[in-house]
Amino acid sequence: MMSKSFHPMVRTLMGPGPADVHPRVLAAMARPTIGHLDPQFVALMDDIKALLRYALRTDNLLTMPVSGPGSVGMETCFVNLVEPGDKAVVCINGVFGGRMKENIERAGGIPIVVADTWGRAVDPNKVDETLRAHPDAKVLAFVHAETSTGACSDVRTLVEIAHRHDTLTIVDAVTALGGSELQVDAWGVDAVYAGSQKCLSCTPGLAPISFNDRALDRVRGRRTRIQSWFMDLNLVMGYWGSGERRSYHHTAPVNALYGLHEALLMLHEEGIEQAWARHRHHHAALRAGLEALGLELIVPESERLPQLNVVGIPGGIDDLAVRQRLLNEYQLEIGAGLGELAGKVWRIGLMGYSCRPVNLLLCISALGAVLRDLGHPGDVAGAIAATHQALAA
Amino acid sequence: MMSKSFHPMVRTLMGPGPADVHPRVLAAMARPTIGHLDPQFVALMDDIKALLRYALRTDNLLTMPVSGPGSVGMETCFVNLVEPGDKAVVCINGVFGGRMKENIERAGGIPIVVADTWGRAVDPNKVDETLRAHPDAKVLAFVHAETSTGACSDVRTLVEIAHRHDTLTIVDAVTALGGSELQVDAWGVDAVYAGSQKCLSCTPGLAPISFNDRALDRVRGRRTRIQSWFMDLNLVMGYWGSGERRSYHHTAPVNALYGLHEALLMLHEEGIEQAWARHRHHHAALRAGLEALGLELIVPESERLPQLNVVGIPGGIDDLAVRQRLLNEYQLEIGAGLGELAGKVWRIGLMGYSCRPVNLLLCISALGAVLRDLGHPGDVAGAIAATHQALAA
Repeated sequence: MMSKSFHPMVRTLMGPGPADVHPRVLAAMARPTIGHLDPQFVALMDDIKALLRYALRTDNLLTMPVSGPGSVGMETCFVNLVEPGDKAVVCINGVFGGRMKENIERAGGIPIVVADTWGRAVDPNKVDETLRAHPDAKVLAFVHAETSTGACSDVRTLVEIAHRHDTLTIVDAVTALGGSELQVDAWGVDAVYAGSQKCLSCTPGLAPISFNDRALDRVRGRRTRIQSWFMDLNLVMGYWGSGERRSYHHTAPVNALYGLHEALLMLHEEGIEQAWARHRHHHAALRAGLEALGLELIVPESERLPQLNVVGIPGGIDDLAVRQRLLNEYQLEIGAGLGELAGKVWRIGLMGYSCRPVNLLLCISALGAVLRDLGHPGDVAGAIAATHQALAA
Repeated sequence: MMSKSFHPMVRTLMGPGPADVHPRVLAAMARPTIGHLDPQFVALMDDIKALLRYALRTDNLLTMPVSGPGSVGMETCFVNLVEPGDKAVVCINGVFGGRMKENIERAGGIPIVVADTWGRAVDPNKVDETLRAHPDAKVLAFVHAETSTGACSDVRTLVEIAHRHDTLTIVDAVTALGGSELQVDAWGVDAVYAGSQKCLSCTPGLAPISFNDRALDRVRGRRTRIQSWFMDLNLVMGYWGSGERRSYHHTAPVNALYGLHEALLMLHEEGIEQAWARHRHHHAALRAGLEALGLELIVPESERLPQLNVVGIPGGIDDLAVRQRLLNEYQLEIGAGLGELAGKVWRIGLMGYSCRPVNLLLCISALGAVLRDLGHPGDVAGAIAATHQALAA
């Protein structure tokens, strides 16, 4: 045992999340704990819901953070919306589509897979064909921002197709929220879940969700009981719902919610469109630097996420050695590849508070220096200049 | 919307939890976030597991905090250990036994209920008879410290009975851990879950669990797949398990775990037996004060929890008025009754950092003053003196 308090060496977090957490959020988390039924806390809950509606561009009443990581947000959507025997079309173009499929199966549903190449967006034509072939599908599920590959799928188009086939949509916006345009109401997304630790600059552990009336009607009209007590939205809404009296369901993670509130407040202060633009702008600068270093983004330009940049590892370069040197010499974390991309790519995040000029220069200069040490020919000075110029543009 | 940072008015938390959180724990939560696969974080995870084994008095390898509130700890135990069609004997002597029953049903199990009066311990004789009548029962589930009533059940005896019938035990120790003697290994508890926000003086949001080999064998030998992806211990252990390489499962709530580590470290510094003794000692002093105020504990003396004191509300006194005045005039939170005890009792917690002399004097003097204002005859000076004397004893 350590038998002493834990004081972590400070890192710069430019992996797939958690991203750097803003000091205001950390300070909020350290405020005195109050009861989960305290009138002050109930007011805070209302404010969190309002701020989440702002961030998600929705008026959905059922908009709240689930008391668990993004994976619990995902499972909450599936156990509420998929009943045993239901067909659910699920798009797999990375790790998280695969996890959705597992959730469908464990909820007793029948997954119909639309497979796409890792590193590419979900193909709307294939989705259309599949829904045509399975007119009884109850759900279409896909990932907006695939954290394992850096690909961005076209939510608006996919939802349109689903609705044409009278199919409900579940959208994974874990990495998208705050970093990529997402219009829950205007695009008609039925159910969506997100994460706190990506472009919201908050600590991990909370999963915002939002359900529209159509999705709620599905929950209310179920033939079977929801298999999870904790994730049963009929119960959760008794606590998080509107109305004066909140009935106890579980004890909310009070201090984590202080942090989420502060993070959402900062997003509101910046403006959601401005946050999207900031991610695009810094992405352009990072890309300029990476390309000058001779690194290539694996996702085609029109399908790239700004907040997660996935580059191929150059031939002859040892994945782990580079990441360890960045971590040990510069306290800089970048992400390894996941699933079938393990060992082949690095995932460089520009999420939330990590998406700022100092992080860009650190990343380009540290990665450039380490790669040059290992014999990779890259123009470090040119990369810095390209990044700097793109930032100033 | 508030459109400003949330600065809660500071409360003294003497309800059923969350309890007062120690400043060291709050400070820990505000430390810089690091990645959930960072070598520093992996070392912290190992230390948390070691400290949890100390607190639970166990050498169980599978001892770790689940990334969710106590309710997720509960559900994790049931979805892993109860298969569809399994009979499970569940003891209900308050709200949380009832919640266990719901969990059994939703996991597809068949609950066999042993009902006891709210405010009393689980009756071992009834459990024995029930297990005799249902020799095929796979699980016996009960609550150690019933948070809704203040009753303490005899874990050692109940586990002995279960094992005589070759039945696995699931014990709810949410409010027990750190406040009441609990010997997981010596008493042979097979699976146990707890909470962070009670006698550990930590914030809500994490649920320590521990499974012994017998329980793990049950998980490994299942005929059916575990219905929850997030709570499937086969997957969770790949991340929290021992061994050099941790595989990603979900993103752990990094800062919440900083807090839990600090809280467990403080418990280790104090000593677990000393923590149990502290709760007993302060309970005796609180009881002396409450009785001098003319209030009666509803649980018979031999079955009382020290950390949660449930008193009957005197006739003619308005429950809500008293709690609101305590909250508004003294920022003191005590708990309302839950379930069938709603409106009939107050629940006064002495958990973790809330279990200290200043809180005792505040509670007795504030409650005494407010009750006297409302016409309840109670000897406030005598109550303070009795509390003071018992503390000095």
